[in-house]
Parts: sequence; structure tokens; C-alpha cells
Amino acid sequence: MRQTRDFNKPPVVLSYATIAGPKEGEGPLASYFDKVINNLYYYEDTWEKAEQKMLLEACELALQKANVTKEEVDFFLAGDLLNQVISANFVAKTLSLPFFGLYNACATFYESLALGSMLIAGGFAQKVLVGVSSHYATSERQYRNPTEQGVQKTPTAQWTVTGAAAVLLGEGEGQLKIPRVTVGKALDFGLADPSDMGGAMTPAAYDTLLAHFKETGFNYDYYDLIATGDLANFGHQVLVKLLAEQGINFGSKLTDCGILIYSPLQEVNAGGSGAACSALVTVGYVFDELNRGKISKFLGLGTGALLSQVTTQQGMTIPVIAHAVAIESY
Amino acid sequence: MRQTRDFNKPPVVLSYATIAGPKEGEGPLASYFDKVINNLYYYEDTWEKAEQKMLLEACELALQKANVTKEEVDFFLAGDLLNQVISANFVAKTLSLPFFGLYNACATFYESLALGSMLIAGGFAQKVLVGVSSHYATSERQYRNPTEQGVQKTPTAQWTVTGAAAVLLGEGEGQLKIPRVTVGKALDFGLADPSDMGGAMTPAAYDTLLAHFKETGFNYDYYDLIATGDLANFGHQVLVKLLAEQGINFGSKLTDCGILIYSPLQEVNAGGSGAACSALVTVGYVFDELNRGKISKFLGLGTGALLSQVTTQQGMTIPVIAHAVAIESY
Repeated sequence: MRQTRDFNKPPVVLSYATIAGPKEGEGPLASYFDKVINNLYYYEDTWEKAEQKMLLEACELALQKANVTKEEVDFFLAGDLLNQVISANFVAKTLSLPFFGLYNACATFYESLALGSMLIAGGFAQKVLVGVSSHYATSERQYRNPTEQGVQKTPTAQWTVTGAAAVLLGEGEGQLKIPRVTVGKALDFGLADPSDMGGAMTPAAYDTLLAHFKETGFNYDYYDLIATGDLANFGHQVLVKLLAEQGINFGSKLTDCGILIYSPLQEVNAGGSGAACSALVTVGYVFDELNRGKISKFLGLGTGALLSQVTTQQGMTIPVIAHAVAIESY
Repeated sequence: MRQTRDFNKPPVVLSYATIAGPKEGEGPLASYFDKVINNLYYYEDTWEKAEQKMLLEACELALQKANVTKEEVDFFLAGDLLNQVISANFVAKTLSLPFFGLYNACATFYESLALGSMLIAGGFAQKVLVGVSSHYATSERQYRNPTEQGVQKTPTAQWTVTGAAAVLLGEGEGQLKIPRVTVGKALDFGLADPSDMGGAMTPAAYDTLLAHFKETGFNYDYYDLIATGDLANFGHQVLVKLLAEQGINFGSKLTDCGILIYSPLQEVNAGGSGAACSALVTVGYVFDELNRGKISKFLGLGTGALLSQVTTQQGMTIPVIAHAVAIESY
């Protein structure tokens, strides 16, 4: 099966917005975000409400930047890491938009870009709003331990990014275009350590990356920048090694959003993760670099670990996925 | 915004399969299901693995009936009620298919039909496999109380359907066609009782139903049968009343999957619910009735309550959604 879809009339990015958490606002990409909040509660009485507020504000800001009202939006595609994707659900009902809830773990942003692009290129929508969020404190307490407990983490563990990003996709003219996507297969490589999700997701990123180049026939130097979602330091090193075994060397053109979002001094173990990790880096940093002409051809690979606490407790391995979306400025 | 999309070349149903749980196998629709399991564990050591097995078997059976290999499937769209949609994730990785994970609660089956139809009608897929599952025991312990505790339920509570259904959508010729879909808005009517989800979802069904008829311009007698997802007895009565206030009376043409799946003697309180409720009734019962020529025009409305335990605990109301999909035989 061919996983790549090319768009004759590429969907375009009409506008985008990002809101980052306090730690992300102290990181190297701080200046790229539209807004940085200074407290994980963001003036709400629960972390979950803070996460919803961030996602809502990112969506509203994206619409505002494009001067588009919510009545002009055909579909809202969104998801997050919380059980029942409640951040997305509550933002969807506040916006009262036709809504498709999505879940591909940390690959949800790229899942939403891929599906949203096909809905536009297929002629079913003129404007699609996509959005994702994640929040350190809501994820920690849901997936791991009560944060108050201060459980020590392993070196391979990653830090869930607090933030939200929204993109308004549309048809017609625009500087940033989405000419093609490669939809990732759900795979399982037998890895089972929930404290090393970067490692678990790495072969999925490898699989989709190779499928993308094989199916497009592009030279490996086609893209100016390739960024995986959130493999973080260890996963990224393994990916580089796996590619080297095939004689492929992207050099400094291959990076990872989980590495870029924090500085090594921030004590985040292997790096960042979370649905907002690849979203903040792609939308905040990469889109700006594309708009400023620093790069013109970008391939992002959203990576997701499709496990749950229950499947880990039941001794099961970690299904993984990676979706690739090309974003080009020309 | 127009919520309805019409397909010039309607996607078709290439094949479908259903697996039902023990209680569903004692209900009035038992003879319509491909398989009925006689134990909630289904020869597995956990309920969650049993649910995955049902969904996997439904998917494999649908492919087998159409004589289609998994390599011929372009995309797998699936979801379920469990945290992180793990039933869908584990089936996706077992099938190793390009995968979009979806979550719209009990409306997930109709969400997958709507998205799958657009991917085919848009020319991005020749074959899309959609599947959903739910399981009484996995849902009870995740959303409510340990089943062993035997907590008493309110009369408005619904019984989560155990089962899985899969549909292979395709292009070209086929007896069952999907000529149009109406994508539901996420809405909130201020209802907050998690033991009355049918009641909470009813205004969403009403909203999408009216949008569908308004946008298509169809007479109210256009469809031979209209079935809501899982409003169950109380919600259905309220919907009939809301419609009557607008002078609309569908009579016996309007029914509900949560009512149809069980007999009143089965002690299921208000009726059935769960992602598999509308899926089993639509795919098992309605598709067969369409194929046999008993009816030729069907409109299904998958309804979903987009809450979580956390949002209920935090005193929030219940966001709701309903997606409508027309399925016609001609």
C-alpha cells in the first residue's frame, strides 16, 4: 500500500498560533511563541481547565490572525493526551464547531494536519482548524504518579510539554503549503518500557521516513530540515544509527522537536514529549523559519506511543506510529 | 457553516462484520450478528484483551468477506471508549495498517464512517477499513465502579454494549451507498448528570437531524428509517417531544439503537450505549435490512457524550455531538 498522498492543489496555512508553558518559555524557542504563561494553573482552579484554556486561546488567536470567524470554519480537528481527549472536546463545544476528535498520542498534531489537508484537497472544506495541547501536570498525574510525590525519573524519561498550538488550514494562496503527507502505519517492535517512549517510537519514525523517500523518489537532500516529533536525545541517536546502517546521513538537517524545545540545562532528562511538543516546535519555530525564508522545504514526523497505563499493567508492548507531513514555502 | 457533504460518486460498503457479546446475543437482534461470544473474557485473561480480540476479528472478517487483503487497505480508522483508544491501537498495530485513531465517544463509529467516506470520495483512498468496539466490563471499571462492587444504577443509566463492528468502505459499485453525511457540532446544553447520557445527547441529535433536513431540503418522509445512536428510552422520548414541538413527527420511522439492541426484559435500565451500540445495530441489523430490500433509505445519527470522569469530578457539564450518515440501497 502506498502511504504517501500528493496534493495537486496543496492546502495552505492561513494562520497559526502557539501558547507555551512556563518551562517552555524559559527554553531556547521562547521568542517564537505567541504567548508564554507563567503558571501551570493559568488562573484556573485545575490544571485540566488551564490546558483547555490554552488550547481555546490558541484556536481563537489563529482565527483572529486570519481575520476568520468561527462560522467560516468547516471542521475542527483536535486531540490531546487526556483520557477521552477532554481538552479538545471542551474547546470544540466552546467554539460550537463541527468536530472530529482525534487520538494518536503525541502524533495527534500530525494526524490532524494529514487529515485536515485531505479534507481540504478533497474539496470537502475550505477552512479546517486543527489544534492540540498537552500539559505537564495533567499528563503526569494521569499517566504516571501524583506530581506531589516527586517520584524520580529514569534518564530516558521525557518531560511532557505544556502548551497548545492551532493552525488554520485553507485552500487557495498562502506562503506555507502542504504538498504531501505520508500516513504512518501502527507498528509494534516489541518494546515495552513506558519510561523510554522515545526509544519505542524511533523505529516508527524510521519506517515512515523511509516510506516517504521511497514513495516520493526524492533524494535524501530534498528537504532543508527534517524534524521528528519527540524521540528526544536517546531516540534521536538511535534513529541516526538506524539510518547510518542504510548508508543514509541527514547530518544536521535531521533534528527532533523533543531536543529543540528545551535547553540541556533545563533538567528534562531525555527531552520533551507530549502532543504539544511537535506542535509548538513545528508551528512556533519551523513555520516562522519557513516564513522568513531561512528554510523552504520541511518534513515533520509526528511520533506517537499508543499505549495506556492499563496495557502496560497487563504486560503488553507499546504500539507506535509516525505521520509525515511536508510543509514548503515557495 | 454547512455541515452536510454530498458525494457525487458515493462511497460504497464493500463488506461488513459484527461480533456481539453474550447479553447482545440474547437480545432481539441476535440473529443478525456474524458471531456471538458466550463469555466476556472470550478466552483471554483480561477483558481489555477480549475487546481487542473482538475488534480484530470483526476487521479480519470484513476483509475476508470482501476477499480483500490488508495490503489493499489504504487507511484504518478506528476508535473505542477506553483511555487512549487502546482497543483500536492494538488492532491497528496487529494489522500494521496506516492508521488514524478517532475519539467521539459513542459517536466514534459514525465519525469514522463520515471521515472514511470523505477520504474515498476525495480520491485519497480506494479502500478504508473502519472499526469500533466497546465492552461492558472494560467500560464499567474504567468509567464507573469496579463491577464486583455491584453498585446500583439509576433508571436513566444505560448498559454498555459488548461488541465490535467493522466496515470496509470503497469506491465504485456496491449495493449500499453513502450519498451524504452531516458532521455534528460539539455542543453543550448544560446537562451534567453522567448517569443520564442519553438525555444529555438528545439535543445534539436534534440539532444534527434538523441541520440535515434543512441543508438537504428533503421532506421529513424521505428516509425509510432514522436511528439515533444511543439515546435509549428516556432520551428517545425527549427527542420525539422536541421534534413534535416543531411540528415534526417521524412516527415509527424514528428509532434508537440503544432501544433496539436489547429487549425490555433484559434489565438494562434505559437501554444500550457504547461505541458498539450504534455500530452493531447499524452494521448488523440495518445493513442487512437494506440489503434485503426491506428499507432503501436510512439515516443514522451516531451520538456521543464527550465527558470524562475528571471533568465530572471537576463539576463540568457534558459536551455532546451527533454525526449523521445516510446509507442507501439502490
